[in-house]
Amino acid sequence: MHVVPDFSVSPTQALLAGPDVDLARIDPHSTPGFDGNKQEGKARLEAGKKGLSELQEKLFAESRFGSSISVLLILQAMDTAGKGGIVRHVVGAVDPQGVEHHAFKAPTPTEKKHDFLWRIRKELPGPGMIGVFDRSHYEDVLIHRVRQLATPEVIEARYDEIRDFEAGLVDSGTRVVKVMLHLSKEEQKERLAERLERKDKHWKYNPGDLDERALWDEYQHAYQVAIERTSTPDAPWFVVPADRKWYARIAVQQLLTDVLAGMQLSWPKATFDVAAEKAKLAAT
Amino acid sequence: MHVVPDFSVSPTQALLAGPDVDLARIDPHSTPGFDGNKQEGKARLEAGKKGLSELQEKLFAESRFGSSISVLLILQAMDTAGKGGIVRHVVGAVDPQGVEHHAFKAPTPTEKKHDFLWRIRKELPGPGMIGVFDRSHYEDVLIHRVRQLATPEVIEARYDEIRDFEAGLVDSGTRVVKVMLHLSKEEQKERLAERLERKDKHWKYNPGDLDERALWDEYQHAYQVAIERTSTPDAPWFVVPADRKWYARIAVQQLLTDVLAGMQLSWPKATFDVAAEKAKLAAT
Repeated sequence: MHVVPDFSVSPTQALLAGPDVDLARIDPHSTPGFDGNKQEGKARLEAGKKGLSELQEKLFAESRFGSSISVLLILQAMDTAGKGGIVRHVVGAVDPQGVEHHAFKAPTPTEKKHDFLWRIRKELPGPGMIGVFDRSHYEDVLIHRVRQLATPEVIEARYDEIRDFEAGLVDSGTRVVKVMLHLSKEEQKERLAERLERKDKHWKYNPGDLDERALWDEYQHAYQVAIERTSTPDAPWFVVPADRKWYARIAVQQLLTDVLAGMQLSWPKATFDVAAEKAKLAAT
Repeated sequence: MHVVPDFSVSPTQALLAGPDVDLARIDPHSTPGFDGNKQEGKARLEAGKKGLSELQEKLFAESRFGSSISVLLILQAMDTAGKGGIVRHVVGAVDPQGVEHHAFKAPTPTEKKHDFLWRIRKELPGPGMIGVFDRSHYEDVLIHRVRQLATPEVIEARYDEIRDFEAGLVDSGTRVVKVMLHLSKEEQKERLAERLERKDKHWKYNPGDLDERALWDEYQHAYQVAIERTSTPDAPWFVVPADRKWYARIAVQQLLTDVLAGMQLSWPKATFDVAAEKAKLAAT
């Protein structure tokens, strides 16, 4: 049998982005901690599905017996960076019953009437679930900063609010994993060009994407500040190089697997008398 | 390359259960329309994933351009019949972004205060989504009938309410596929025994399952009446023999594929000037 290469350094270590992060020094084309090539990366993704899936089932099973722990994966990125591919190829490997996925769009008029965390709170994962946020409350310090949709004072306050909010989540049993898919401007150009080239991809293209692209540096700066201000030991950011889709996928798969493994999950013990139930069943 | 056998008769035809259904005459161990064995069935499941996934993506894509169509798969069955396996192995093959899964449990006090369709309406799939109900409003004419949780008059009225409700769904663009996984009493016994045998399955076992099992015939009758009264050309029931898990999975996969194929989905046409966008992108 072919040997599937493993990470030499876990992404949980290699990709951790603390308050001292320097985004400009992280190469979007790199593959930290993984020495294999694309083909080996794809094999790694396949090989990692079963372990992740089993851990998810234990998480789910424990919740049926009163545990209220859960996991929240937050995905943030520039357009075309591959959030959708992560959802499909990484999250898609676990049981849909155990996943709560939510894509946050531009806020509705109703949502705008409330504080920026209001709509986020409504979508938090239930006990035993893996919640996946495709965009999140971070939009309120990213696009809001770049587009000046809020005053600098308001945005400053939001970093603290986010820290408090996430600390509360962690306290109540939700493990928070924050991922920035880190794409290069050149790679985005190629991916946008592909969307324009293929008729089955036109629906994914929005002329507004070029307006955001024009603000590339401003967005990088906004990410830099957001990570500096909100990466904490309990709710850390991971910057995942995303120019190679296969790498980003195995990295996030491993991040999720590490988080779940660290929760020391186990199959719930029977709360009934197994022998007695066997006898009752046999008599039916 | 190995040839994957196809259905000789589509499950959409072979498993259709109209008002003249006779559940007692449908063999839970049979494999209507499929002549292959288990191994070939498993190959069929793998082979069918891509087509279903592509159709789902088109459904989703159309919704981004104003279409409000969606699909609702309703799963009903006795315990251990394999609803979870359908979700994992059939629904699990499509993009999690395009799936809204909801498992209905015993109603909460709040839900009980409302009419029985109230909680159902809140979980209907959004535009472009495939909604999956693990149990549904049919519990209100199944367990409610068997356990006499409502008067016969109330239950009688519910069949009509369900027909009207589902007709409304169909009118508003939701295709409704109702599946009863049809298990034999003997096979359930084996599956419950397995749950008792394996420590990693104990969490799926509930002593109350045996109480429901004791009412097997009453449940079969309740299903029989429910299908008679609520199977309509627009919202048909399909009785899927479920003693062989692999067959139930390929059958439901094909039912979903047929429904989506019948919607004549296509990739949305670009609403922008492709050449102009290409030029703009090239200049960035």
